[in-house]
Amino acid sequence: MAMLSQILGDDMRDLRAEVEKRHDEGVARLQEWVRHPTIAAEGRAVEEGCELMMRLARDAGFANVARIATDGVPGVFATLDAGAPRTLGVYFMYDVKQADPSEWSTPPFEAALVEKPPLGTVLMSRGAVNQKGPEAAFLAALHAIRGAGRRMPVNLVLVAEGEEEIGSPHFRQIVGHPDVSAALKGCDGVILPVVSQDPNGAVTVNLGAKGVVECELVASGEKWGRGPGIDVHSSQRARLDSPAFHLVQALATLVTPDGDPAIDGFADDARPPTEEQRRLLDEAAGRLDETTSKALMRVTRWAHDEDWRASLERLMFTPTVNIEGLVAGYTGPGGKTILPHRAVAKLDLRLVPDMSFDKAVAALRRHLATRGFEDVDVIPMGGYDPTSTPAEAAVVRALLAVYRRAGVDPVVMPRLAGSYPGCVFTGEPLRRPAAQVGLGHGNGAHAPDEYYVIRSQVPGLAGWDEVVASFVAFLHEVAAT
Amino acid sequence: MAMLSQILGDDMRDLRAEVEKRHDEGVARLQEWVRHPTIAAEGRAVEEGCELMMRLARDAGFANVARIATDGVPGVFATLDAGAPRTLGVYFMYDVKQADPSEWSTPPFEAALVEKPPLGTVLMSRGAVNQKGPEAAFLAALHAIRGAGRRMPVNLVLVAEGEEEIGSPHFRQIVGHPDVSAALKGCDGVILPVVSQDPNGAVTVNLGAKGVVECELVASGEKWGRGPGIDVHSSQRARLDSPAFHLVQALATLVTPDGDPAIDGFADDARPPTEEQRRLLDEAAGRLDETTSKALMRVTRWAHDEDWRASLERLMFTPTVNIEGLVAGYTGPGGKTILPHRAVAKLDLRLVPDMSFDKAVAALRRHLATRGFEDVDVIPMGGYDPTSTPAEAAVVRALLAVYRRAGVDPVVMPRLAGSYPGCVFTGEPLRRPAAQVGLGHGNGAHAPDEYYVIRSQVPGLAGWDEVVASFVAFLHEVAAT
Repeated sequence: MAMLSQILGDDMRDLRAEVEKRHDEGVARLQEWVRHPTIAAEGRAVEEGCELMMRLARDAGFANVARIATDGVPGVFATLDAGAPRTLGVYFMYDVKQADPSEWSTPPFEAALVEKPPLGTVLMSRGAVNQKGPEAAFLAALHAIRGAGRRMPVNLVLVAEGEEEIGSPHFRQIVGHPDVSAALKGCDGVILPVVSQDPNGAVTVNLGAKGVVECELVASGEKWGRGPGIDVHSSQRARLDSPAFHLVQALATLVTPDGDPAIDGFADDARPPTEEQRRLLDEAAGRLDETTSKALMRVTRWAHDEDWRASLERLMFTPTVNIEGLVAGYTGPGGKTILPHRAVAKLDLRLVPDMSFDKAVAALRRHLATRGFEDVDVIPMGGYDPTSTPAEAAVVRALLAVYRRAGVDPVVMPRLAGSYPGCVFTGEPLRRPAAQVGLGHGNGAHAPDEYYVIRSQVPGLAGWDEVVASFVAFLHEVAAT
Repeated sequence: MAMLSQILGDDMRDLRAEVEKRHDEGVARLQEWVRHPTIAAEGRAVEEGCELMMRLARDAGFANVARIATDGVPGVFATLDAGAPRTLGVYFMYDVKQADPSEWSTPPFEAALVEKPPLGTVLMSRGAVNQKGPEAAFLAALHAIRGAGRRMPVNLVLVAEGEEEIGSPHFRQIVGHPDVSAALKGCDGVILPVVSQDPNGAVTVNLGAKGVVECELVASGEKWGRGPGIDVHSSQRARLDSPAFHLVQALATLVTPDGDPAIDGFADDARPPTEEQRRLLDEAAGRLDETTSKALMRVTRWAHDEDWRASLERLMFTPTVNIEGLVAGYTGPGGKTILPHRAVAKLDLRLVPDMSFDKAVAALRRHLATRGFEDVDVIPMGGYDPTSTPAEAAVVRALLAVYRRAGVDPVVMPRLAGSYPGCVFTGEPLRRPAAQVGLGHGNGAHAPDEYYVIRSQVPGLAGWDEVVASFVAFLHEVAAT
């Protein structure tokens, strides 16, 4: 294919051949991996998943592979010393989200290869794109380099966790392990294997990500000391306070009448875009398609009726207060005449630099307390600080060079509006540049029929071999940058 | 038993004997009935339930028994002409609430008789107290009167529906049928068989009931024209409005900071208590126990920190705005980073005379529209106008006389804080006095392990025979009043 030979030029013809030769082997390895799901939320296959992760690392050429115990699911730490001048850190997650087979068109852990027009052949499975597909492609790149009889162009440090899908509650224990921490400090950068292409092949590169706080707000009669301590008949509402209305009143203070964040002090540390970031936004606004974006979300207008360029700036530069879910009392069909004693809102707050998880939670608690809602419990469920990596970082420059050589011109975004735990690497104490790396396309993370493109029918959209080749090229590019 | 001979004195010794003789027959009839549940919400056993209701009426001596077709579940209309000067209407429901067997200690439709200390022997079954137990006891009273060779002391008009548990959506079609309407207009009063005793035997008589509006408030991106039309990733919150926050903001306007109703015009027609009603409240406050009431609901203080007497007045004389349930987005354990496109609040509004269902719904819609929430759908799910019957009505006087003769001194309440469709009888066009009638005790309507006391071990608490006797005595008392 044309794309493959663009990614790996004539000086890497042997690598190109090796990638193609090992296609079936690499896809079979991915299929085996998704058939053995580790699901932290269910405590499923935790030790087996860890052992499999260790074996996958060993098979790919890592010499020192260690299980890192935590208070939860164990991590994996592995190193590959190639005697190279540069060292690259690699972050893996080996757990996946839960899956309800009744919602899937093919069993979620059967690893079926199915035709999905117009994309081509895809692997349909839980974990296909989030995150085993891209990770297995990265491992396949290591197999190809070794198989071609080449020396690894960079040293590698792998850190893997099995709890990403429950908010990485013990990942700091893993990177805080003295051996892991020392190894990561010696890295020139850290990468997270991902897909970066939309179904048409367009590539986006994000120079970081927003942080996030996921938390529950809980109002209850017990804690409040008002209203009932159990669900009672709703006729009692006449003489009893309502924890559900108490929660509603608390929530209403968190946003302005227009719906923007109104938590006292929440956004004090939010930095506006720099000149360079404004330039990236201008360029992105010109290249991305507003109509498609609106249609995908069935949206008729942006908040504040703003234009496309403004909506992109908001997406990347404004902190948010969102209700993920509301649960109180009777939630089934029809009604039930009760006065619930407890009400819960699930919130997520998105953070931009230099806001932090800890400060955001503290601001929320203080805000509620000063308004008579000190009884409303704020229960953090997980989250991360924002993460940023400068465009000049070697990993980013290498990434852009590989993509451009592959014939794609990426849209560079100041940051992802979503969140990932890159802050563990970019923040204190490691302060390493971090980047999400990888061509390819998939979709359905956390949803039914999750897929990852194996053989692409779309010009410019990478299939398995092109993705593997992009990792091969990237490793050589990092060594040369 | 002493109580039985108090209820039916020596001039009714034959009736007393007949009630006792027919104990097993009457309980078996009730057991058969609860084993054949009609559940309107599930469309379960609708025709069979109607036929069984008709047979039960025929067996009890009703001569003309007719199925009344509606747009939903059919009703039953039956008359018993005793050639008596007075005519009494009787309201039955033949449907029951759903039941989840996994929550019950005995299968909900097996009609088990179980020991429940300290109460005695109870029938544990869905429908036991709501409403087949009291209704079957009323039918048993008719069997006893006939079995004793006595003439029925009053003429009877029975109207039954099979949709009470879904809010009686077609009951007005039943009573609006020309034959039914004409028969009801000829009644001196209408009764609804109920239990009126608490576990200690104390009796409460309510001179009416609050009305209620059950409705859903629905905010959605589609209707609002803002925010997403499907659930999208929560990172999009930065540039998209939130239907869930829109609903929260709408809800917050419905109450004052203290949680009292704040819907414009909602309570304009609410009447304060009369002198006589204040006297009843004073007496009730002296006789009812605040500590028990608070303990049952795990309540430490009433709204506004008011005292017991004030809490009773609020319970009966203030309209309410209650949240029965809140549902939006992700409601399971943990979190899920979505921006929901739809949010629902289930509300119930309780109404006092002279408020009405229609005016309350209109006020709510107007209130929302004038505050920028005209897109929030108000979907009524069911409800009733308030209902009142004067203490001087013959049915009430007969009721109090029977109770006092049984040795119990009822607490007379201006009204029930809950709601029942008595307004169909007391309101236009029928305007008949209506009363809830019946000794006895049961609990667990709409909950697991619903029960009805068959043999009482508590002094002063009526078991089956005493309840049946109280209906026998009541029918004679109405004839004599």
